[in-house]
Formats: sequence, structure tokens, C-alpha cells
Amino acid sequence: MKIICSKNDLSKSINIALKAVANRTTMPILECILIDASADQIRFVTNDMELGIETIVEGEIAQRGIIALDAKIFSEIIRKLPDSQVSIEADDSLNVTITCERAKFSIPGRPGEDFTYLPVIEKSGSLTISQFTLKEMIRQTIFSIAVNENNKMMTGELFEIRDGVLKVVSLDGHRISIRNVQLKKQYEDRKVIVPGKTLSEISKILSGEADSTVSIFFGPNHILFEFDRTMVVSRLIEGEYFKIDQMLSSDHETMVTINRKEFLDCIDRASLFIRENDKRPIIIQITDEAMELKIDSAMGSMDEQIDIEKDGKDILIGFNPKFLMDALKVIDDEIIHIYLVNPKAPCFIRDEERTYTYLILPVNFNQVG
Amino acid sequence: MKIICSKNDLSKSINIALKAVANRTTMPILECILIDASADQIRFVTNDMELGIETIVEGEIAQRGIIALDAKIFSEIIRKLPDSQVSIEADDSLNVTITCERAKFSIPGRPGEDFTYLPVIEKSGSLTISQFTLKEMIRQTIFSIAVNENNKMMTGELFEIRDGVLKVVSLDGHRISIRNVQLKKQYEDRKVIVPGKTLSEISKILSGEADSTVSIFFGPNHILFEFDRTMVVSRLIEGEYFKIDQMLSSDHETMVTINRKEFLDCIDRASLFIRENDKRPIIIQITDEAMELKIDSAMGSMDEQIDIEKDGKDILIGFNPKFLMDALKVIDDEIIHIYLVNPKAPCFIRDEERTYTYLILPVNFNQVG
Repeated sequence: MKIICSKNDLSKSINIALKAVANRTTMPILECILIDASADQIRFVTNDMELGIETIVEGEIAQRGIIALDAKIFSEIIRKLPDSQVSIEADDSLNVTITCERAKFSIPGRPGEDFTYLPVIEKSGSLTISQFTLKEMIRQTIFSIAVNENNKMMTGELFEIRDGVLKVVSLDGHRISIRNVQLKKQYEDRKVIVPGKTLSEISKILSGEADSTVSIFFGPNHILFEFDRTMVVSRLIEGEYFKIDQMLSSDHETMVTINRKEFLDCIDRASLFIRENDKRPIIIQITDEAMELKIDSAMGSMDEQIDIEKDGKDILIGFNPKFLMDALKVIDDEIIHIYLVNPKAPCFIRDEERTYTYLILPVNFNQVG
Repeated sequence: MKIICSKNDLSKSINIALKAVANRTTMPILECILIDASADQIRFVTNDMELGIETIVEGEIAQRGIIALDAKIFSEIIRKLPDSQVSIEADDSLNVTITCERAKFSIPGRPGEDFTYLPVIEKSGSLTISQFTLKEMIRQTIFSIAVNENNKMMTGELFEIRDGVLKVVSLDGHRISIRNVQLKKQYEDRKVIVPGKTLSEISKILSGEADSTVSIFFGPNHILFEFDRTMVVSRLIEGEYFKIDQMLSSDHETMVTINRKEFLDCIDRASLFIRENDKRPIIIQITDEAMELKIDSAMGSMDEQIDIEKDGKDILIGFNPKFLMDALKVIDDEIIHIYLVNPKAPCFIRDEERTYTYLILPVNFNQVG
């Protein structure tokens, strides 16, 4: 095999492919990038058995063939090369020579036959949205998946298509994040659970441009994202997602209208006195026209008032400040509405059109304080 | 005590003062910033017993007094405040209230009397240079001090004034870095050893502008740097510095003229195959008009040639690539000269005027490879 590509094209494609390279595995082949130049185009393929990526590389095939290279060493070599043409050549004994200007590297390759190719997804039932929208929806929900695997379902996000709307949901037992987007066409109704890791890796390689699109295809156990010259295939999480509709009551006793940025900055200041692993809540007192935030700790105390508009009852309620901040950071609206029932019921931050809903459970501060 | 300052002025002064706050100490007062508003100006003072900083803060004294505040909490509070006027007020029981717009923080203070003030250095025998020059000289030598304290002297840098030249020297047993700068006036000859930590902290707070100056004063056991509205006092390292003149032979058998950036990039590529703690050298073969770099490792091998001009004998010599790169990174010249004697003698990188000299010991690659 021999291919010739520019250093920049190689770097771009390696950075995409790296997202599906396994870390810490006992199978070295999973730590490789497969260079597949067996047909008319050069492809880089990676596969950690959960997530697989295939991307087309600009360049010229001087001699067809395939070879697998340790992804880390290969990417470091390419990164340090001068900005010029690079030739990658594998001989019959799998020795690979990488040449650029007068620099010449030799590294051992592995047989391409050992590599597990991506599963083939039948390309029916696709969904097309802009890369910008997908990237935003992931950013606006990914923070509330659960990180540990006690409940596999919580480590993924629900992607649900119903009545021409794509809904993305994540929850971790303390909070729920929901984003809805109206689709431009009608699609078949569908519900799948996509691993959080897949979503965070994919959002790193999406260009995020509003006028580039991504096509999403569904197989029985897999989801396929196709965009630019890249395919990302991921396993789905099996099972039935949580029934969130019954958690989303529309009743409230108090509605607060507040400036998002002021509220966020104020919580940020209050959380100064909360060290990691400290379960101390911030206490929010809502009265007519003012919200007062308070925190008390061994290090000191803090107290601040924010102007608000209030409909309904006064309320005194405690929250984990991180959960409030996570939601407030990903909302774009300048003025937001918060709906509350009582100090033991969840609060909702949502817009009138329900394009977003953030549910956050309160903390019982009598027990803690 | 009560002072009123802008958030920005406070932040600026705290960032300077933080550089002499002790980490991990059993004496909490060393982790404090002293706010001294007992006279006509507000001063922040910090002192970790090796290094001390005093800086003047813009602001208004509403009530005179002094108080010490935990530096970490104080700086975090100020950092998170809105961009507005801040009032800092201590009551008789040392409770400190920090108020900014509608945010109010309370933290405990410590009596200013517990604080150890900076030693007073008599301001005779000063030396004045530009902040840019001092900052550059530190950056160009600091990397070759020794980090561990087996030899205290090696953890500092020699500052020597002789015949109107300031010479700064650092060495760690494997290499020596020397920078010389012509002073604008004649000063008394002098030799002191300044702790490396002092120099790296001071270079962080020097503005680095060519038209701002720093005045340096010498006491029997201390050095004082005065610039802008800040004073930095440091203990000196006691003892007689290494006699470096006898290590700096001017003889050579080979002189190489090479493009610095090409040489640096090439070593950078070769060092890909050297993992941390690996003592493997890169082998440099110098022949007429070409330098060839080679490295062999279990991960792979690399080989590259660079055009050079050579005077004298051919030579094959091994180096720790990091030592070469450290020196090459801080030299500004595009074309440099390297002087070599034999594979067991140090090489010198220096300009003709000797404004810089970098001595690097070779590695005996027969023993290693």
C-alpha cells in the first residue's frame, strides 16, 4: 500500500478518527486506525466496539492496500511533520514508512484483516437536521446524563421522533433536561437511546454550521450519523426509556420571571463557599419582587438579592447550585420563567413554547443545615 | 477598617500578591493577604518567609486599619464579583464584610499583628534595567536550574554584575545557560544567588514592557525588586556559586552553522519515540554539509537530514533531546553556531558576542543503546 496526502488533510481525518479509538484495552487492534486504500478512496476507520468512525481522506493512492497503525503514534508523527506532502507506504512485512520532506519514520503496522469493520446499517428511514441543531441539542442536554453505570439507561439520551418533532431527553435521578425541535418534514415515529459517550464524541467532530446537515439512520441495534465525508456508527442502549411525561406536571403555585445572567452569576458567587462533595444547598427565598439567595458555611456566608417578577405564593426552597447553573448556562433566553409548587416538589425552568424544559429536584435543607 | 476599590483594581493587586502566598503550610497566617490601610495608601502584603510582596492598591480608605484575609477565599470572592465598586469592611471582632452592588459576603479575618512584615532592605546600590530585559533573561535561563534540592545552589541563578555587564547563569549538572546584558551605567561589582522560585514568580508579574523599568537592590541576605507600584523581596541563597569560567573552554574541533527552527523541529520529531524517563539519546552525525539525526526505539525509528555548514572534523555524538530543545527554544537568532570537540566533551551553542552561551553535556550512546 502507498498513499500520498497533504499533512493537513491527514491531520484533519486523524482527529476525526481518533474519537473512536479505544483507550486502555487488552486488544491492541482496537487502538489502531485502519488505513483502507483497497478501493478508489482512502478511508480511515476506527472502532472501539461501541462506537465506529469511517472518514474519507483527501489524497492519492499510489498502490492499493490496507494497513492498521497504532493511532497514538501515527497521530503524533503526522502532527509533528512539516506542512507538506506525506507519503505512507507499507511493505509486505507490514513495516510502514512515513516520509515527509527529508524526515523518514518507520513504524510497525498490523494486518488490516484483524480489524473489525463497522456494522452495516441499512439506509432507510433517515432524518436530516442541521449540524448546528444537533450539536446544540447535545450541548444543551448532555450535562444531565448519569456518569456512573449503575443504571445504563441514564448514561444515554432519549432521541424521540413524534408528530414531526425531535425530542432529546437526559436525566440522572436529580434532574431532567428536555429539548424539542420542529422537523422540516414528517418522519416515522421512533424512540431510541443513544449512549452519552457517542453524543459527546460526535459533537466534537460536527462542524456545527447551520447550513451543513447531518443525516441520521436507524438500525435495530445501531444509529448511524452521516455528515461531510464521515460516518459515525454507534450501538444503541437497549430497553424502554423512563416515562418522563408523568413527571412533568404543569401545575404550579409560584411563577418567577428573572434575568438569566443575573441569576446565574449570583449562584456562581454563592457556590464559592461550597467545596466539592459538600452537599450544602443554596437557599432561595422568593417574596414579592425579590429573590434572596443565602449560603452559610464554615468558610463564611453570602447573601444577595435579585429583582424578579413573581406570580403566586412566596416560597423558601433549597437547591444544589450546580444543577441550577448547568441548566442556566445552556439556555439562550435573556429572561426566563421558573415554576415552583412547594419546597419538596421539583422546579421547572421552561419557555412558553416548551422548546426547552429543565426539571430540577430541590434539596431538603432542614435535614442538611 | 474600611476601604473602597474597584473590582478591577482589587483583582490586579490580588494577582500580584498571590505569588508570595504559601501553599500547604501549618501556619494559616502565611496563607493570608494582609490588607494594610493604616497609613495613606492601601497596601496588600504577602510573605511566605522566602519571598515577600507588597503592592499598592488604587482605592479610598474610609476608615484606617489592617486585617489579614485568607488569600484563596478573598481572591475567589473578588473574582466572581460584578465589575463595580467593592467595599471591604472589618469590624472589631475581625469579621470582614465584602459588599458589591447587592452581593454581601462575610468572612472571618485574622489580626494584622500576627503577620510578618517584609524585611527592610536599605536602598543603596541599586541596578536599573528594563522589565522586558529582566523577564527575557529569566525565561532564557530558568529551565536549566535543578528542581530537586540535593544541591541548594543549583535551584537558584547567579546574578553577577562585573564591568558594567549583568550576567545570569543557571546550571543543573548536565548543562549551563548563560545570558549577558550590557548595562547602561557602571555599577559596583556584585555576585548573588537568587532562588529560582523567586525568579519564576517575579517574571509572572513583570509587565515585560521595554519602556518600564525595574530597580534591583541588594541587602546582605536579600534582594529587592521594585517596579510599577510593587516591591518583591526574596532571600538569597547563601554560598559561593560554581566556578563556571573554567568549564567554558573556547577550543573546538567542529563548528556547525544551522537554521535554529529546522534543527528544533527535527529534534522535536525525533523525540516522539522517547517516552518520559527514557534516557535514550538522539544520535547526531555531522558530515560535510549535512547533519543526520537518528533515533531507534521499540516503537519505531526516525531518520532525518538537515543542511548545515561545517568547519572542522566530522563527528558522531548523542544528546538528551530535551536539553537541546530547551536551549533552542529560547534563542531568538535564526541561524546559530554549535561548537563541538569530541563525543565526550560538552557542546556549546553561542553567538559571537557571547550574549548567550548554552553548554550541553553529551550522552554516551554506546552505553545506552
